[in-house]
Amino acid sequence: MIKVGIIGATGYAGAEIAGILLGHPEAEVVWYGSKSYVGEEFSGIYGNFFRIIDDKCLDDNMEELADEVDVVFTATPQGLCASLINEDILSKVKVIDLSADFRLKDVTEYEKWYKIEHKAPSFIEEAVYGLCEINRDKIRNARLVANPGCYTTCSILTAYPLIKEGLIDPDTLIVDALSGVTGAGRGAKVANLYCEVNESVKPYGVANHRHTPEIEEQLGYAAGKKMVINFTPHLVPMNRGILATEYATLVKKDGKLPTEEDIRAAYEKYYGKELFIRLLKSGVYPETRFVRSSNFVDIGFKVDERTGRIIMMGAIDNLVKGAAGQAVQNMNIMFGLDESMGLRIVPRCP
Amino acid sequence: MIKVGIIGATGYAGAEIAGILLGHPEAEVVWYGSKSYVGEEFSGIYGNFFRIIDDKCLDDNMEELADEVDVVFTATPQGLCASLINEDILSKVKVIDLSADFRLKDVTEYEKWYKIEHKAPSFIEEAVYGLCEINRDKIRNARLVANPGCYTTCSILTAYPLIKEGLIDPDTLIVDALSGVTGAGRGAKVANLYCEVNESVKPYGVANHRHTPEIEEQLGYAAGKKMVINFTPHLVPMNRGILATEYATLVKKDGKLPTEEDIRAAYEKYYGKELFIRLLKSGVYPETRFVRSSNFVDIGFKVDERTGRIIMMGAIDNLVKGAAGQAVQNMNIMFGLDESMGLRIVPRCP
Amino acid sequence: MIKVGIIGATGYAGAEIAGILLGHPEAEVVWYGSKSYVGEEFSGIYGNFFRIIDDKCLDDNMEELADEVDVVFTATPQGLCASLINEDILSKVKVIDLSADFRLKDVTEYEKWYKIEHKAPSFIEEAVYGLCEINRDKIRNARLVANPGCYTTCSILTAYPLIKEGLIDPDTLIVDALSGVTGAGRGAKVANLYCEVNESVKPYGVANHRHTPEIEEQLGYAAGKKMVINFTPHLVPMNRGILATEYATLVKKDGKLPTEEDIRAAYEKYYGKELFIRLLKSGVYPETRFVRSSNFVDIGFKVDERTGRIIMMGAIDNLVKGAAGQAVQNMNIMFGLDESMGLRIVPRCP
Amino acid sequence: MIKVGIIGATGYAGAEIAGILLGHPEAEVVWYGSKSYVGEEFSGIYGNFFRIIDDKCLDDNMEELADEVDVVFTATPQGLCASLINEDILSKVKVIDLSADFRLKDVTEYEKWYKIEHKAPSFIEEAVYGLCEINRDKIRNARLVANPGCYTTCSILTAYPLIKEGLIDPDTLIVDALSGVTGAGRGAKVANLYCEVNESVKPYGVANHRHTPEIEEQLGYAAGKKMVINFTPHLVPMNRGILATEYATLVKKDGKLPTEEDIRAAYEKYYGKELFIRLLKSGVYPETRFVRSSNFVDIGFKVDERTGRIIMMGAIDNLVKGAAGQAVQNMNIMFGLDESMGLRIVPRCP
Repeated sequence: MIKVGIIGATGYAGAEIAGILLGHPEAEVVWYGSKSYVGEEFSGIYGNFFRIIDDKCLDDNMEELADEVDVVFTATPQGLCASLINEDILSKVKVIDLSADFRLKDVTEYEKWYKIEHKAPSFIEEAVYGLCEINRDKIRNARLVANPGCYTTCSILTAYPLIKEGLIDPDTLIVDALSGVTGAGRGAKVANLYCEVNESVKPYGVANHRHTPEIEEQLGYAAGKKMVINFTPHLVPMNRGILATEYATLVKKDGKLPTEEDIRAAYEKYYGKELFIRLLKSGVYPETRFVRSSNFVDIGFKVDERTGRIIMMGAIDNLVKGAAGQAVQNMNIMFGLDESMGLRIVPRCP
Repeated sequence: MIKVGIIGATGYAGAEIAGILLGHPEAEVVWYGSKSYVGEEFSGIYGNFFRIIDDKCLDDNMEELADEVDVVFTATPQGLCASLINEDILSKVKVIDLSADFRLKDVTEYEKWYKIEHKAPSFIEEAVYGLCEINRDKIRNARLVANPGCYTTCSILTAYPLIKEGLIDPDTLIVDALSGVTGAGRGAKVANLYCEVNESVKPYGVANHRHTPEIEEQLGYAAGKKMVINFTPHLVPMNRGILATEYATLVKKDGKLPTEEDIRAAYEKYYGKELFIRLLKSGVYPETRFVRSSNFVDIGFKVDERTGRIIMMGAIDNLVKGAAGQAVQNMNIMFGLDESMGLRIVPRCP
Repeated sequence: MIKVGIIGATGYAGAEIAGILLGHPEAEVVWYGSKSYVGEEFSGIYGNFFRIIDDKCLDDNMEELADEVDVVFTATPQGLCASLINEDILSKVKVIDLSADFRLKDVTEYEKWYKIEHKAPSFIEEAVYGLCEINRDKIRNARLVANPGCYTTCSILTAYPLIKEGLIDPDTLIVDALSGVTGAGRGAKVANLYCEVNESVKPYGVANHRHTPEIEEQLGYAAGKKMVINFTPHLVPMNRGILATEYATLVKKDGKLPTEEDIRAAYEKYYGKELFIRLLKSGVYPETRFVRSSNFVDIGFKVDERTGRIIMMGAIDNLVKGAAGQAVQNMNIMFGLDESMGLRIVPRCP
Repeated sequence: MIKVGIIGATGYAGAEIAGILLGHPEAEVVWYGSKSYVGEEFSGIYGNFFRIIDDKCLDDNMEELADEVDVVFTATPQGLCASLINEDILSKVKVIDLSADFRLKDVTEYEKWYKIEHKAPSFIEEAVYGLCEINRDKIRNARLVANPGCYTTCSILTAYPLIKEGLIDPDTLIVDALSGVTGAGRGAKVANLYCEVNESVKPYGVANHRHTPEIEEQLGYAAGKKMVINFTPHLVPMNRGILATEYATLVKKDGKLPTEEDIRAAYEKYYGKELFIRLLKSGVYPETRFVRSSNFVDIGFKVDERTGRIIMMGAIDNLVKGAAGQAVQNMNIMFGLDESMGLRIVPRCP
């Protein structure tokens, strides 16, 4: 039985890990770390776990934790994981960091976009970017995994095969994305109050959202060149879900646009055997409700011959494939388990 | 492996049975019956099941179905099950009816409240009211189970022990209840459109909702006398969940009101060993989000010494414990399985 | 032109006063007071007012304000108004307090329910309870008006005529109420975050909500005796609106229950000429969407002969008739204006 | 007093016209036309108008109506207005058509995108496209105005000045838009049920939505060339509001990108004196809640030097500036009234 510790267990992503691992036959959470609720019952905060999880919250003591568990999930704000980690800890325990601390290989990019100093730059090189379907082999032997961001997971997976196969022009990629409000976390901010969010939509982080360089770096690897994209997130009044609508100009071959079949073949080539990626039928587009609470990525697309562009659309649950689910998927890979263990969750709808 | 047929599989309750049984190790759905979608892929209607359920919808042919399966769930409007059932069918297959056709023992009450003629009154006597925690023993040997209504399940279970123990005066019981919109079904009605329901609450069926006689009959058995109650349902803008807030005058013993401890002891006496009923801690009251997608009933209460009344509050997911979950629980009992098989669903929140 | 100052202008009720007064021909806001946003543009906080209100927020300086304006609205937490007020101020300016500081005549009740010491008990006697339809004559000459609570406005007006006329037994009154989330204010609290409130309902303040003594005191005047009631508020996922569903036992006359006509006559007697109270037709019950953004109180009822009880239902917009609208209505009365000035707002739906 | 008839008064747009005209000093509705509710009280359908509008619904008889009123609004499905209109009618009454029948000048485009035969092609030439801020002068003398679509109003106005001034490349324009659910109308369809829409977002009409040719035609006039664009609408769970996020490549001058100031100057040039268009401050982006129930268009933008693109964002209330409000604005222009009469509605928030 894998012993699991969660730092930041009372945030939405941390609690989601706790919930998912209740259905995992080979792992159990033994440490519910928290900054604000030390000593309180975990199920007093998340009443859904009443009589299911009986533990009290412990503190966020990484040193002590490293002696107690086999794997630590850090579901905390940027900067905390980098400030806690060191060689001694990594020699004892695997770390899956849900923050952005180890996602970008270029530390100056990190410091530019996140506006904080990186406290453990020496581990950036070693850290593996935990986008399971792409980096599976590297994840297997990693000590430190940087779990991808929610927008980035959805944005990258939706465009990856077409960029990799040269079917679209990387310089034309535009990602327009919508997110449910759990993406904003559980901090007590006026902007996230019910009445500030309900019955409205808004763009934010326009041309400067922090997930931009992450998408650019990862898709850049696929393109074989540096990419610069537009990424515009919007907040929509729902709890969970991300929908990314992506636009790019199709690359002609012999003067002809790729057909729907060409595009489908490219997706099939990379995702045909992926359990968690569902390529939708022709004319069907993703809806976030159909992936809710699951680890699925639903992808649809439309070739627009009028404009010569393709519209690619992907949907995930931001707390599952966009955070906790992918983190558990990474854990499964790192520990040599069936990758889908504990994650064969069927979406419930409505 | 128990073979299952669902008549009305494309309604919300029918689809919920389908979803729950995907996690049931001893049962599998082999017939997705539908009136409106015959020949269409089930996952074309409920995209959440894409690549999980590959079946197409069949018709609602009860005769044929009875030869193919071990148990039939009828998740259909009032009157249909009664019009389909007969001795031949019941001799071949167990039937769990999610409509109201066999819930009331008094056929004239049925015809008065539902305003339709009962087509199979001869089976009313035999039918067992499938409120699992109360009628478990009778359910075990039943051929025909009347699955309780959503409001009724919540309303009855919340008050039952106190009425049974004589702690409250049955003549004073008032049930004020709130329901999510799935309770109104999936029919295309203007009243259930998003923009008619959103950002509003309303009472309906005031003093004449059809679940009233069902609550009165069942709680009347516990009271040992005929009961007449007030029941007021309200529609609230959310997908799932029922919250019942119930008021009754406490019965004094030796001139003294029962204490919180007395009340708690009564609940514990009846529900102490029940897996699906969670009696909340003192001062904690149920919230529908904490039971969402699960088979739990969360119950809290407050003794009000100022008025001599008790306020009892219960919460369920109307599609699970209020419909599909309880139906599967009934199936488990009828087939001698562990009652919780396939139903140990942990609520996900938010 | 009446000069208006608002203390607490950046809260939901304060901003609603600002919005309503934009449509008032005889009053204008000259002081937008705030604790947290001094010096910031008011329309930077409430973008709806961009290019409509150009003022910056000032501080909450009551002394200075009293020299500048004709009337002050205090839309602030309990205790603040009582701590600011004095004879000098009241000699210069009329005060309409939207907090609870001057609502209860019995200061010990105030201190018991609100758990704070009252800083200006000497003004309690003078303060007039600003429930316009009931206390119109007293309000006319008041210097200090205690604007009623949102739940209380709705609960009292819905039951008042029947209690006044002796048609219902005051000892049996139970008020079960639902509120939108603006009722919880604009403070940054985890409990009011979008994802904590959305897709759920919950009771709170069970048997100890602070609006209880206010309802009891005011309805007690109508009953001519001390009343003790049950009042249970619930939080529902919508921005605005209160729905109160009230239960009481009808008083028989000559062995007969009052009829629907008797009840209707009582409502007509008190409200027949009231512009803002709409008695709905037989069989029609209030929905909060139909009063949204307006000063209306919609009332419906049902006589239940089976139980001998009546179910009374009232709906208001908690920010308008439950706060800002009634405050402006009080201002109009105090300044001898047409009571509906600026308040003939037509609800918009959906 | 202008006498107004509404054909399709019981749909959301029709009812919104009714609501707006209650606040219009020079116009009054005398004919509430309906297909489904003839003879019923209008306020029985829209309870918000109880005791405010006392009229019953009449039929959709255009001939008779033309004799009774000065202006007819047709708020009906595509095809109806074209089938009702003729020279006799237009000689008696002004017509403002909220459907798409007279929006496209090219009848083959209409028939291709709408898949119905046009019944009155001879009036297409005469009809004026009622985008008030652009076509004001032509509208003044029109007998027949084609009121623009909701998405189109928002999409066009957000990009218009920059295309007109040659600051962006028309061939690169991509419009990604979000709409509340009133945009889907009040028809009883499963897809628009509360539980199908709530807690989800979805794209629809991808690369073939009918508002596409309308945007292309109108912006094409500004560009001085035929335009082909991508337009992707999404449905989001809220009642009202459209947000359009638009992307285009900036056109360099002398090798330099236009600056934020250049862009702002272009917007100011066209909209500086427009009452209903609010150009937001630098760094502020539109939110639909801030225009709710009003006739405002809020516009913000961001120059992205990294990609050489601009992101333009516009927000409207789809039922007001996107339908009923603009229709009334057109009426005001056609009748020589102050263009803002009845439309100085202040958005209410939250």
